[in-house]
Amino acid sequence: MNSTTKRNVVKGTAGCVAVGSELLGDAKLDLNSLEITRTLETYGFDVVEKRVVGDSVERIAASIRELLDGCEVVIVTGGLGPTADDVTREGVALALGRELFFDPEVEVWLQERYERVGRTMPEIGRSMAMVVEGSEIIRNTAGSAPGILVEENGRLLAVFPGVPWEMRSMVESHLKASLEERSSGRIRRSRTLLMGGVVESEVEGRIRHLYDRFGRDNVTILASFGALRLVLTASGTEVEATGDLDRMEEAFREILGDDVAGINIPGLAHVVVPALVVSGQTLATAESCTGGLVGAALTDVPGSSDAYMGGVISYSNQAKEEMVGVPQELLIEHGAVSESVARAMAEGVRKRFGTDWGLGVTGIAGPSGGTDEKPVGLVHWAVASPDGVAARHREFPGDREIVRQWSVNVVLDLLRRKIGGLS
Amino acid sequence: MNSTTKRNVVKGTAGCVAVGSELLGDAKLDLNSLEITRTLETYGFDVVEKRVVGDSVERIAASIRELLDGCEVVIVTGGLGPTADDVTREGVALALGRELFFDPEVEVWLQERYERVGRTMPEIGRSMAMVVEGSEIIRNTAGSAPGILVEENGRLLAVFPGVPWEMRSMVESHLKASLEERSSGRIRRSRTLLMGGVVESEVEGRIRHLYDRFGRDNVTILASFGALRLVLTASGTEVEATGDLDRMEEAFREILGDDVAGINIPGLAHVVVPALVVSGQTLATAESCTGGLVGAALTDVPGSSDAYMGGVISYSNQAKEEMVGVPQELLIEHGAVSESVARAMAEGVRKRFGTDWGLGVTGIAGPSGGTDEKPVGLVHWAVASPDGVAARHREFPGDREIVRQWSVNVVLDLLRRKIGGLS
Repeated sequence: MNSTTKRNVVKGTAGCVAVGSELLGDAKLDLNSLEITRTLETYGFDVVEKRVVGDSVERIAASIRELLDGCEVVIVTGGLGPTADDVTREGVALALGRELFFDPEVEVWLQERYERVGRTMPEIGRSMAMVVEGSEIIRNTAGSAPGILVEENGRLLAVFPGVPWEMRSMVESHLKASLEERSSGRIRRSRTLLMGGVVESEVEGRIRHLYDRFGRDNVTILASFGALRLVLTASGTEVEATGDLDRMEEAFREILGDDVAGINIPGLAHVVVPALVVSGQTLATAESCTGGLVGAALTDVPGSSDAYMGGVISYSNQAKEEMVGVPQELLIEHGAVSESVARAMAEGVRKRFGTDWGLGVTGIAGPSGGTDEKPVGLVHWAVASPDGVAARHREFPGDREIVRQWSVNVVLDLLRRKIGGLS
Repeated sequence: MNSTTKRNVVKGTAGCVAVGSELLGDAKLDLNSLEITRTLETYGFDVVEKRVVGDSVERIAASIRELLDGCEVVIVTGGLGPTADDVTREGVALALGRELFFDPEVEVWLQERYERVGRTMPEIGRSMAMVVEGSEIIRNTAGSAPGILVEENGRLLAVFPGVPWEMRSMVESHLKASLEERSSGRIRRSRTLLMGGVVESEVEGRIRHLYDRFGRDNVTILASFGALRLVLTASGTEVEATGDLDRMEEAFREILGDDVAGINIPGLAHVVVPALVVSGQTLATAESCTGGLVGAALTDVPGSSDAYMGGVISYSNQAKEEMVGVPQELLIEHGAVSESVARAMAEGVRKRFGTDWGLGVTGIAGPSGGTDEKPVGLVHWAVASPDGVAARHREFPGDREIVRQWSVNVVLDLLRRKIGGLS
């Protein structure tokens, strides 16, 4: 990499390049870089730049050259297959000013790979046996295209196939060890506090004073319509990072209290379902505006059938009456979107399914159906148990999809708090 | 941009840069570039490279310089706000070798923006009144941070805020007109054929011979677990592109026939619901393994309440019996995941809700619950109408989420075919 050295390499920095013209359109995203970034960050590397380039030898070469000019580690994915538009090998050779040569040993290995799955290697497969001078070849245990490793002048260039599981297997087998060696024990760890039923600006106001204490860059808020994730990050040795994260978690929990639903879990259903299962309790749902999204979230949790008995999507008023047992007079007097109907849905479905808990949600998701008195975004929800019924309502901003997403999260959050006896 | 000219600019090429350290982590993706790419492609521009860079003046400047070296159009988003890490203005100035100066007129305009929403512009807001020498300022009608336009030597550099709606409003007000002028009437249009219940490799085998006729790059297959999108693209004048797309659509439809569910629609539910509404028919659903996902997909379509009456999430056997009316002997004899139970669910829910159509789906989504006879991935589904019941089953590959997604799509596809009297 001598020809490319313009700046000094910055220790601990990394760059990613995803190769593939299909990743430049509006239909397909480069998701490989997320996994690679996660791995890099785990070992304490800062990703300073990510790129997506089409299947062009010159663009690939320029990207590699430009990123190696400063970064300690550069990871390239894609363009290693056998077809004419797979030109990453040529790009790497051009970037490094090295030759590509045909390696008969790699060809034999490739032929064996094809034969093992009962196929004959096509003529074009030979292109995968072209090797960049002075590089290490990574044999692909999950597919065929070999990967490439080059280490020189303290820098690492790793090139993996774009197929996610092939990339992943090479990250495991070759990248992690190399990063660990370079990281000299300095790693980065993160911990995510999931919160339900809270608003971003309000949470930010409560925790802002902790930013100085722990570093603004180490605290990230990710809000998504009723579920909020507070991502805490710490660097150092494994012991240091874990200690820092413990201290951070304690400080944030002290302020956020019961609003914290759990640590490192994908969603509120993943708190509610285990809480029911361990206490041997059961649940049924009656959904109107969410149309099945609450049930879908609950049944997304493996093993949910131990606690979730099912529910009714009572989209029509007739279904609310006949399938859930909402009294017709409530529907006439208060309308389908009302506190009393939400309560009757939660109680009714609990009774019909014979469960410990019942949950009801009814609202106006829009875009039409709103009135002055009951605007689009108004949602009523309720949770019923042997101890009684709790009901809430709110007017959510946003379009149909957003109102529905908010509804799912606030309903599950109310249930979480009631199950746990929280405020 | 004289200092940056190394190669000749390639007409019709474009590059994108998203600025923001938060976009380099594993939690947040640059989605703005998808919208920008769509706009660029509409006007016939090829995006040759996309980048994400952190909040570093040098990295931003290098990216702009490197992309302007070859691209006719470069679009930058993010880093235009008032805080200390918003350094895109400095990056642009450095890239172009121009001065930044304070523009009191812009400051007055910014102050008015703040006052209109009842706030006073903070001192740091003044940084947004810094202007790149010789650039055009785009006043932000959806927020505060101004955008930047620079045209020189036949190239266009456009810099927009990272907030999606602010970016979008500047794309509308300033980018589109400029791209149209440059495109000299040459545009690109695409049309998406949605297919249900088909397998990618099988579809590819049927249509492969058309690739040569229409150009491999003009046909993209996007498969997502039972719903497949065939994206057709054509370039030229508006009339030429539309004519080409018409010819392509005709040729593909001739081969794909009833497998094509619709054109330019987001999902199969968006075919099923309108088909029911226009014919005045109604539908109810009984879901087991999908746990509400079918209902959620149907109710995602605005106005679905005219056709979709609701459904039962019959997750437990008891719910299948009591809420849907599945005979207990069927559950005992055939098991919950069986053709006869799927049929009984479709018929039962149709009867309970008094609808024209009923739909039942039951399966083993995993990860546990599978047996040798009934492995994880096995799904039975059925559609009932006054004319009888049609049932299907299949073993789907993949994890819980993928099996559930496949199930939703094949169920909706069977319903679509039955409603339309198709094969």
